[in-house]
Amino acid sequence: MLIVQKFGGTSVGDLDRIQNVANRVSASLKEGNQVVVVVSAMSGETNKLVGFAEHFSKNPRRADMDMLLSSGERVTSALLSIALNEMGHKAMSMSGRNAGVVTDNSHTKARIESIDPSIMKKALSDGNVIVIAGFQGVSEEGVVTTLGRGGSDLSAVAIAGSLEADLCEIYTDVDGIYTTDPRIEPHARKLEKISYDEMLELASLGAKVLQNRSVELAKKLDVNLVTRSSFSDAEGTLITKEENIMEQPLVSGIALDRNQARVSLVGIADRPGIASDIFNRLATQSVNVDMIIQNVGRDGHANLSFTVPMNELADAKSVINEFQEADEVDLADYDDTICKVSIVGVGMRSHTGVAALAFATMANENINIVMISTSEIKVSMVVEEKYAELSVRSLHSAYKLDS
Amino acid sequence: MLIVQKFGGTSVGDLDRIQNVANRVSASLKEGNQVVVVVSAMSGETNKLVGFAEHFSKNPRRADMDMLLSSGERVTSALLSIALNEMGHKAMSMSGRNAGVVTDNSHTKARIESIDPSIMKKALSDGNVIVIAGFQGVSEEGVVTTLGRGGSDLSAVAIAGSLEADLCEIYTDVDGIYTTDPRIEPHARKLEKISYDEMLELASLGAKVLQNRSVELAKKLDVNLVTRSSFSDAEGTLITKEENIMEQPLVSGIALDRNQARVSLVGIADRPGIASDIFNRLATQSVNVDMIIQNVGRDGHANLSFTVPMNELADAKSVINEFQEADEVDLADYDDTICKVSIVGVGMRSHTGVAALAFATMANENINIVMISTSEIKVSMVVEEKYAELSVRSLHSAYKLDS
Repeated sequence: MLIVQKFGGTSVGDLDRIQNVANRVSASLKEGNQVVVVVSAMSGETNKLVGFAEHFSKNPRRADMDMLLSSGERVTSALLSIALNEMGHKAMSMSGRNAGVVTDNSHTKARIESIDPSIMKKALSDGNVIVIAGFQGVSEEGVVTTLGRGGSDLSAVAIAGSLEADLCEIYTDVDGIYTTDPRIEPHARKLEKISYDEMLELASLGAKVLQNRSVELAKKLDVNLVTRSSFSDAEGTLITKEENIMEQPLVSGIALDRNQARVSLVGIADRPGIASDIFNRLATQSVNVDMIIQNVGRDGHANLSFTVPMNELADAKSVINEFQEADEVDLADYDDTICKVSIVGVGMRSHTGVAALAFATMANENINIVMISTSEIKVSMVVEEKYAELSVRSLHSAYKLDS
Repeated sequence: MLIVQKFGGTSVGDLDRIQNVANRVSASLKEGNQVVVVVSAMSGETNKLVGFAEHFSKNPRRADMDMLLSSGERVTSALLSIALNEMGHKAMSMSGRNAGVVTDNSHTKARIESIDPSIMKKALSDGNVIVIAGFQGVSEEGVVTTLGRGGSDLSAVAIAGSLEADLCEIYTDVDGIYTTDPRIEPHARKLEKISYDEMLELASLGAKVLQNRSVELAKKLDVNLVTRSSFSDAEGTLITKEENIMEQPLVSGIALDRNQARVSLVGIADRPGIASDIFNRLATQSVNVDMIIQNVGRDGHANLSFTVPMNELADAKSVINEFQEADEVDLADYDDTICKVSIVGVGMRSHTGVAALAFATMANENINIVMISTSEIKVSMVVEEKYAELSVRSLHSAYKLDS
């Protein structure tokens, strides 16, 4: 098999851990695999460099930041290659540029535009294990760029796609994707497989293991992604196409997002486009609106509720104040003691009654559902925050996720 | 003026010192100069990275070492560019590759093959101050290389040559070239100017400020080199063509090399090629032979003396032992309590009696000269080490270097 293995900052956090990664790569090579390794900077290194830059400027030139920050991954790739060579493997380090990663020129948050895998393919066919500095590429102008948060994962997925690798393993400090947060529900179970779409929903609902950019790219490039721990030998979770998952459960996981606040507007002026105005104004202020519910009250005036991230509530309030001062909104009510509980599963597409079971479960526990929103593979419910854990555990049990 | 300014590891050793360098570059820009800066890694950084590599391997792959070590200069170039931008200048960092530095592929000790100055020229004409990561280039294969010890000086000189800069300033922690070591002779005087050839002799005789590779390259490319301190505003020493130095003194400086040992062979077999055999064998063992004196004794057998660096004496001994065991050398005498005192000056070319004054001075102080060797612009004398300081001070005074 051709495997791309990506190790994050914690996994390469010190010299012993780098040796540990070398041992793991070595084991994979000895099983007869071809391996391409993608590494992050040693944990703490990037923050140290950012601190250095901030010493000089609050707003450093972004191309300089890329020159600065890209050095951390280069160090790790060189050290891991040295360790692998010492173990008798034929290893070589490569920068993002050497690996053929071309990006646009949005420094510090560049997007990968193309990968020319020819140098990597040549190195692999010469029997090398390649150790690539993740998080970075080079612009058309030949200047080093970085990919922003989660950039090394993106590098790994894009490289796996360009090489048509059999597997892209993302090593972190957690050993896979769970049916729900094990700190809330001790019976949470690690999933063997999950589809891209379910992973995307879970990630956007608060599961922190993978960023959506990486999952989206894996889906687009048809890359089989495995997330697993670099500190244990436990099998991880395979994130793959729905077709590759034989027995699709109704629900794959329960997500909890505590970082939500509710905004409710009563008595909205009865003129066309008022809702659009409100949401446009919120977007201009970079407020991310999530769930939206609109009703028409008995007096013919519309009522509107929506959720925003907790830390954007102040901005949302000042926008709403403008509309109140213009007499276009009567009353506004804000609540930051709510949370959002979601059930996610592609099985919902083909089965009825999945949402009904969720509502029944909540009713059974006397938990009042404040807002509901559904998508093809997700049901989200806003409840009072005090019911967060109870909601998660009840739903986890109702959908038999612990067995 | 177009000036290349190179700052070594001590000059950029911490964030305050980098700010100090930024201030100095800024001052030069405000005087109306175009400035290209070449930087080393922050002092300690390269050693730290070497230590990391040694943790994994005693003999790391050299291309990996280049990937590793080249990161240090990149960090400094980014930070200095950030500092200069913050001060309102238009600065940009560049890797060796971006600056067009192409080398052979002798990793960790690459030689610069060419510099394409087009990107630098474009950046300069756009009004930028360029901050280049020294010590590094890229091979024809597109892989990063480093230039070995003193590599950042070489980068600076080569870049100055390719840009036809008016001046290449090398900033270190000493403020120029002195007539002799001021720790030995407090009346030592800083030289305003010195020729390339004199500097080459002084450097090879122990003056540590500049490496010969850099001075040779400056001579070849006709680069006016200034060595000065980054910690003071004192004028430095200009190293330039002889023609640029109006009043050439007879002698420019006195050098002292304590790191020498003498080897004397008596009764060498009388066969053709024996001396050649001895020196070939020493060369194979990487023993650097310096001064060589051969005499023919009364019995027709040759006597041979030469000096070697102190730390290569053991290797020299084992070579000589082989010849003694083959009965080709009667007696061998070793002395590591000697030193070499040299007077250097292009004035010797056109004036007679320069060497004679040296010998007279030594005689006057009752210092026995063990060996003598001369070149066009140098007289070197081996004396007992206990006379080292006295020899230097007497010669310094005899040639009126303190006035």
